[in-house]
Formats: sequence, structure tokens, C-alpha cells
Amino acid sequence: MKRIFFITSNVGKFKEVVDIFKKNLPDVILEMYPAEKLEIQSSELEKIALFSARYIREKEKIDNFFIEDAGLFINALKGFPGPYSSYVYKTIGVDGILRLMKNVKDRRAFFRAVIAFCWKGDIYLFTGVVHGRIAEEARGTQGFGFDPIFIPNGDNRTFAEMTIEEKNKLSHRGKAIRKLINFLKLIWA
Amino acid sequence: MKRIFFITSNVGKFKEVVDIFKKNLPDVILEMYPAEKLEIQSSELEKIALFSARYIREKEKIDNFFIEDAGLFINALKGFPGPYSSYVYKTIGVDGILRLMKNVKDRRAFFRAVIAFCWKGDIYLFTGVVHGRIAEEARGTQGFGFDPIFIPNGDNRTFAEMTIEEKNKLSHRGKAIRKLINFLKLIWA
Repeated sequence: MKRIFFITSNVGKFKEVVDIFKKNLPDVILEMYPAEKLEIQSSELEKIALFSARYIREKEKIDNFFIEDAGLFINALKGFPGPYSSYVYKTIGVDGILRLMKNVKDRRAFFRAVIAFCWKGDIYLFTGVVHGRIAEEARGTQGFGFDPIFIPNGDNRTFAEMTIEEKNKLSHRGKAIRKLINFLKLIWA
Repeated sequence: MKRIFFITSNVGKFKEVVDIFKKNLPDVILEMYPAEKLEIQSSELEKIALFSARYIREKEKIDNFFIEDAGLFINALKGFPGPYSSYVYKTIGVDGILRLMKNVKDRRAFFRAVIAFCWKGDIYLFTGVVHGRIAEEARGTQGFGFDPIFIPNGDNRTFAEMTIEEKNKLSHRGKAIRKLINFLKLIWA
């Protein structure tokens, strides 16, 4: 029985990732490991994820874990809230983003996720992106964070109007996690 | 002749600090030292400043320097933009804050600065705060960042409508720097 740690304290994230693991690697135990994270300020998710992974490796003395960092990047707002999405969600929230986007024609945005997987002393990065647009108003109750205002391209529903399975098929996180899983199959074969 | 380094790449900040040093410690040379900073994500300026100072001490192998971290905290926005003020300024800017504050009655806000001074292997923290309110529209061309929309209590002008001397008398940064200067006078006496 293989075991791997997902360093997060976000239950919503963990549920999504568990769902993909169960379908693709049913023999693997995924453990939620809420270690204290140290995130740097940067406009690049890769830098933040790499720094976090190194910090956890040193502090927790574990191997065989991954962390994930994600953000919502809105074109008309020069990428805001980007890497600070969780802070922005906690302060101005969904309502703040809708205010900033009021009467803004260009509603393009994308979610991006970066996974840093630490294994035998090395760190591997996997990324996923989903393009879409900012809704005119919040809709749906599933998911978390800015899901109620993000509509992925090719759909008319927000992420918050989808089940976990539906969101995982399209989402940045789903794409990045499937890349990680393909890599795990390779190295564990 | 004493010499001290101010780690910053913000010319506006440097000008303000130089002005106070010249008036209070005319014999001291203040040098702008634009080292690469590593800032962590935190809602506490103290944590960010401490981490930055330790990182610079280790990386640059210098002593006798200080860094400064500041933020604008808006009550009605739960402290946003706070420690991320410079990122928020570069993305949604002054106009974004005014949009978020449109028709918001409670306009209270404060600027807060934390200085971390590194000397003989120890780090000393000095803080300054100025309370005020968010203006209804941007005014003035002095200063930098969110100065055009911040009106300190006891005045009707924004920081951007004041000279450097006037702003320094009232500002978070001015207060923190004067505390640092008093400390320098003490240890250098």
C-alpha cells in the first residue's frame, strides 16, 4: 500500500484531489497533512510552490508529499488577485471582485494551479490551467473560493454549479493532479 | 562618519527617509541598497519584515542595515490591501480601491509601517501608524502608492497633496523612522 501526503488545510481542495486519486490510483492512501506553510510573495506560482516545498521538506523532515498553490488571474485587472487569491477572498471576497468588474467588458480570466511534489530529495512541478470568464453575478454553492463567479470556457455554469467530478474534469487543479498521477504511475511502476 | 544601509528599491520611500535623517542625524550617510528582497505572505507586517531582514543578513552578509514594510489597512475591507498594498497598487491601483469603496460609509483606514533594523547580529523592530480615511476621489501628485486617496486625521488634504516634510510629520513611516533614529542616537552615543 503506497502512501502520499497532501500538505493542505483546505478541505475543499483535499476533497477534489481525493476524488481523482480514488479513480486513478485506488491503492494509494492520500493523507491530509496540515503542516504550517511558509509562502513567499511573488507573482509566480512556481516560485511560491517551490519555496513552500523546500521549507516543508526541511521543517517536517518528510519526503513523498506534495503541496498545491493556485490563483485566479483576471485579464482586465492585470492578473489580480493572482497568487493572493486566498487573502483577497478572505477580505474583499466574491463581492469585491464583482465590484471591480462592474461594467467591465473584457471578462476573461483563468485559474492556474501549480503542484510541487517532493520525492527522494527532488522536487517536481506540475501545472494546470483553465480559461474562462468572470460571471456577472455569483451562482452556485459547490466548491470554494471564487468558484461561484468563474465560468470555464465551453460551459455556461460556474464551477460552483458543478459536482466535484464535473469540476475536476475541467479545472486547473484536476489537470495538474492528473499530471502528478501519471508521474506517480511511472515512478511507482 | 557613520554609514547605514536602507534596503529598498522604492525611490519615493528613500526620499522620505533621507529627509528625516538629514534633519536629525546630519553626520550619518544613508545609502540606498536595492538588494533582492524575499517577502513572505502574512497578514502581519512584523513577520514579513523579520523574515526579510534575516534573509538579507544571510544573503548579503551585511550588518547595520534596515528594511521597511508598510501597508494600507481599510476597515470596511477587513484590512485589505494590507501587506499586499504594493501588489494591489500595481494591479487594480487607486481606481480599484475607489471602486471597492464606492458608496461605503465607513471610510476609516490606517497606514502602518514596520522597520527591521539589523545591528551586530540582532534585529530591532520599530513601528508607526497613522489613522485617517479614504478620500472620495484621488487628489494630489506628491508621494507614491495610495497617497492620493489617504487623508490623515486632523487634515483635509491627502498625503499626495503634502510636501515630503508635511507628510513625514504625520506619516506611519515618519513615526517609525524617528523611533529608529532615537535608537541610533542611543547606541551610537
